[in-house]
Amino acid sequence: MDSVSISEVTVFRGLMHGIRQPFSGATISPKFCSSKGEGSRAITSNASNTKSQFVYGESLATTADLGYKMNAVNLKNRTLISSVKEKLLLDAYDDEYGGVVVDHEKLPSNPNAFTSMLRNSLSDWRRKGKKGIWLKLPVEQSELVPVAVKEGFEYHHAEKGYVMLTYWIPEEEPCMLPGNASHQVGVGGFVLNRHKEVLVVQEKYCTSSNAGLWKLPTGFINESEEIFSGAVREVKEETGVDSEFLEVIAFRHAHNVAFEKSDLFFICMLKPLSDKIIIDNLEIKAAKWMPLVEFVEQPMIKGDKMFKRVIEICEARLRHRYCGLSPHRLVSTFDGRPSSLYYNVVDGDDNDASQSNCTADFY
Amino acid sequence: MDSVSISEVTVFRGLMHGIRQPFSGATISPKFCSSKGEGSRAITSNASNTKSQFVYGESLATTADLGYKMNAVNLKNRTLISSVKEKLLLDAYDDEYGGVVVDHEKLPSNPNAFTSMLRNSLSDWRRKGKKGIWLKLPVEQSELVPVAVKEGFEYHHAEKGYVMLTYWIPEEEPCMLPGNASHQVGVGGFVLNRHKEVLVVQEKYCTSSNAGLWKLPTGFINESEEIFSGAVREVKEETGVDSEFLEVIAFRHAHNVAFEKSDLFFICMLKPLSDKIIIDNLEIKAAKWMPLVEFVEQPMIKGDKMFKRVIEICEARLRHRYCGLSPHRLVSTFDGRPSSLYYNVVDGDDNDASQSNCTADFY
Repeated sequence: MDSVSISEVTVFRGLMHGIRQPFSGATISPKFCSSKGEGSRAITSNASNTKSQFVYGESLATTADLGYKMNAVNLKNRTLISSVKEKLLLDAYDDEYGGVVVDHEKLPSNPNAFTSMLRNSLSDWRRKGKKGIWLKLPVEQSELVPVAVKEGFEYHHAEKGYVMLTYWIPEEEPCMLPGNASHQVGVGGFVLNRHKEVLVVQEKYCTSSNAGLWKLPTGFINESEEIFSGAVREVKEETGVDSEFLEVIAFRHAHNVAFEKSDLFFICMLKPLSDKIIIDNLEIKAAKWMPLVEFVEQPMIKGDKMFKRVIEICEARLRHRYCGLSPHRLVSTFDGRPSSLYYNVVDGDDNDASQSNCTADFY
Repeated sequence: MDSVSISEVTVFRGLMHGIRQPFSGATISPKFCSSKGEGSRAITSNASNTKSQFVYGESLATTADLGYKMNAVNLKNRTLISSVKEKLLLDAYDDEYGGVVVDHEKLPSNPNAFTSMLRNSLSDWRRKGKKGIWLKLPVEQSELVPVAVKEGFEYHHAEKGYVMLTYWIPEEEPCMLPGNASHQVGVGGFVLNRHKEVLVVQEKYCTSSNAGLWKLPTGFINESEEIFSGAVREVKEETGVDSEFLEVIAFRHAHNVAFEKSDLFFICMLKPLSDKIIIDNLEIKAAKWMPLVEFVEQPMIKGDKMFKRVIEICEARLRHRYCGLSPHRLVSTFDGRPSSLYYNVVDGDDNDASQSNCTADFY
């Protein structure tokens, strides 16, 4: 599957998950219903063959707001073709929720042509009782953005290569389109060695009140990265130390963090596999192994309820008095998607008895 | 604090958190350094008073790539003022990472003026060794989007009211700008009553293979909503049943779900506070209380590893053989932010002994 197909499929997945949560029943193979049976087949902007125009003509015959009928004979008239071209519809697919996804690969390059086609398409979709319209504009066609906004489209989200706009047609129904991504996900690594020393760093960029503080290595996980591998990567990048992921021992949920988005921060216990420290000069000023008692005694840690609690949890875990969550790779038949389910080991579970995370010794 | 200020502050927080994770040391009060001392004070696009022009003149005097010097006397010449106006810089603030945030409230409305100001500003920022440039374009000024793209800006993210573009100046350094939000967060509610009946729904929009399946109520959490309140809300919206949040018992991490983003799905145990079912007609076809044994016997559940495991965990929890994570509201002095830390109860914790989630009876 090439990148374009993936992109299109994920848009459809987005539509599907807007109302339903993926875990709970969406399929992996959404249907692209081009609704041929209802005379609504859209054609491409550069379509100039008679067949396409004829199909278009058939469709238009029922379009009251365009106010005229054309047939194959009329296509011989070049002037008429030209004026008809301006009235073409955007190429688009129906989605499973009564909405429409405009084909971003077949957009006209000329903003005037786009204006005309977008207006016609909106009339057509409105007439057909369509609901949510998805319009993805590649960065190479950024001149179309102001046109879409003028026609009433709203920004939905953007990535490096495109901006996605939406239009909700039904005036009497609340907008049911799914939202944009809402969270950043961060990880912090609690890496303790056999000598009860914890791996700590000092950051290059920090506020004056935090200057001199030794803290756990932390960072955001990358696109499509697992929490368990993100924690190992961040520790390696910042300190050069190799480690093995053990458990998520707690997580923190905070709001209005970056770009008004929310933040989920997973505190992970890791087991060191190497000792030698090599710091990342871009982000980190210093790193070292610090006795746990000394780490906890730092005024900023000692005086902070949340940090104190996190350390207590890590210590309780080391005494087998706490159960963290460990990842288990599972595929659900509901969406066929491989994913990681984080949980404690359930009693009587033969498969995982050897890995019982509440009783397992780390060292 | 009004919405504009919040928006600006969160952009700054975004910059701060790009490299550092909020939990780990960023402040709540980022400094807006307007760098008055270095002759770089930008002026607004509609500035027409002599003082502003003069400040601009001083700044330009050191700008080699603009190639001329102006002074207060020259400002009497209307033609020159006009040509100078086109060469004005965008109003902007320095950030703490050597970058610049353009003031979106003082953008020129004319695309030509914007083109000229953006080019001058880029030269100016480059000359001063600036790194990441943040350009937020409100939806009302969408005509400026193609201009910025033509000058080399990239889309970073978008919300209903704006699109954010970025430009990374240093060619020899990797881009250190923080990413866009990466995750959607969903919740599923396992609501069991005293009669060992589980609250289930049938969805209006589902694939044919899932038709007839009775499943747990699920949904995405809203912007800035807590997981614990989102789960209670979803159950209430879909079924009309009031409930009390007990624990997150597991979570699932999956990738490339909606719009190529990742998905974190939290499975929550809830205690029902009412019985009567009133369904949400927009999303739900039917809802009912279903004996747990009957729920588990559904072929789609029975045949699915992930769902089977989730049910096992819920059952183990009811037998006190499993520890879920419960939310505790805590403020960290690191960022002064109230947030929820999800964890088991730690042994010997006097404050929370009564709420020990591994031993507490739900019913």
